[in-house]
Amino acid sequence: MTAATVLHTMDRPTCEAFLGAEVVGRLAVLIEGEPHIVPVNYAADGATIVFRTAPGTVLTEASLRKVAFEVDGFDEHHQTGWSVCVRGMGQDITGCVDPESRRLQKLFVDCWAPGNRDRLFTVVPTAVTGRYLRRAERTAV
Amino acid sequence: MTAATVLHTMDRPTCEAFLGAEVVGRLAVLIEGEPHIVPVNYAADGATIVFRTAPGTVLTEASLRKVAFEVDGFDEHHQTGWSVCVRGMGQDITGCVDPESRRLQKLFVDCWAPGNRDRLFTVVPTAVTGRYLRRAERTAV
Repeated sequence: MTAATVLHTMDRPTCEAFLGAEVVGRLAVLIEGEPHIVPVNYAADGATIVFRTAPGTVLTEASLRKVAFEVDGFDEHHQTGWSVCVRGMGQDITGCVDPESRRLQKLFVDCWAPGNRDRLFTVVPTAVTGRYLRRAERTAV
Repeated sequence: MTAATVLHTMDRPTCEAFLGAEVVGRLAVLIEGEPHIVPVNYAADGATIVFRTAPGTVLTEASLRKVAFEVDGFDEHHQTGWSVCVRGMGQDITGCVDPESRRLQKLFVDCWAPGNRDRLFTVVPTAVTGRYLRRAERTAV
């Protein structure tokens, strides 16, 4: 018999640990009032997310005003998983010279997609939430 | 030397094949005008998505009016991946007796999370897009 699952809430340090361990996340943005989801390579500094975009993509300054950013992981065999979501404001920090922007500009974002992605954006978090789903007990074999 | 990556657009049948192969996706919804991302178990019928929700969650009828639903997969070693996004309207089809709703109600949605998720929603697609990122040539060892 398979044990029931239990849904737990993550504390902030645990959310940040998961954010720091991944390299691909998903951005939800609004385009003409409608949600879109776009996968992005990113780097995290705590819960602050940094990613690169190219001109001509849907990730423009307007669409990035209010964003949600998510990372997750699942175990299909055990039917368990986790997810962390950062909500906040997207800000173009390309060329910004304030100390915080300069610090974030030094984070390495390993972009897998081709093309010149010379705009650097950050998501300044207003809310950070995380949950994980685990089995209440071991599955009897 | 690692080969450059190339980004390809998927045709609709390929998008539907990927949608049909997964069991967890991510819903982007609007709550008070701000995007949120929530992972969900789902079933797909072509590009029509069916999932279950419980009362008291963020996935209410209001938040599901305009949604984006996404599935993806990544190969971190090769730095390649794919994603499919369905945009559309969320509709509560719990208890609906029209033939299309009755057909969709028969799809099995294997909910991993605990609790009674007795509301059945569908995303009726208005746009289906998919992309995959592959290496232009084999990596030289």
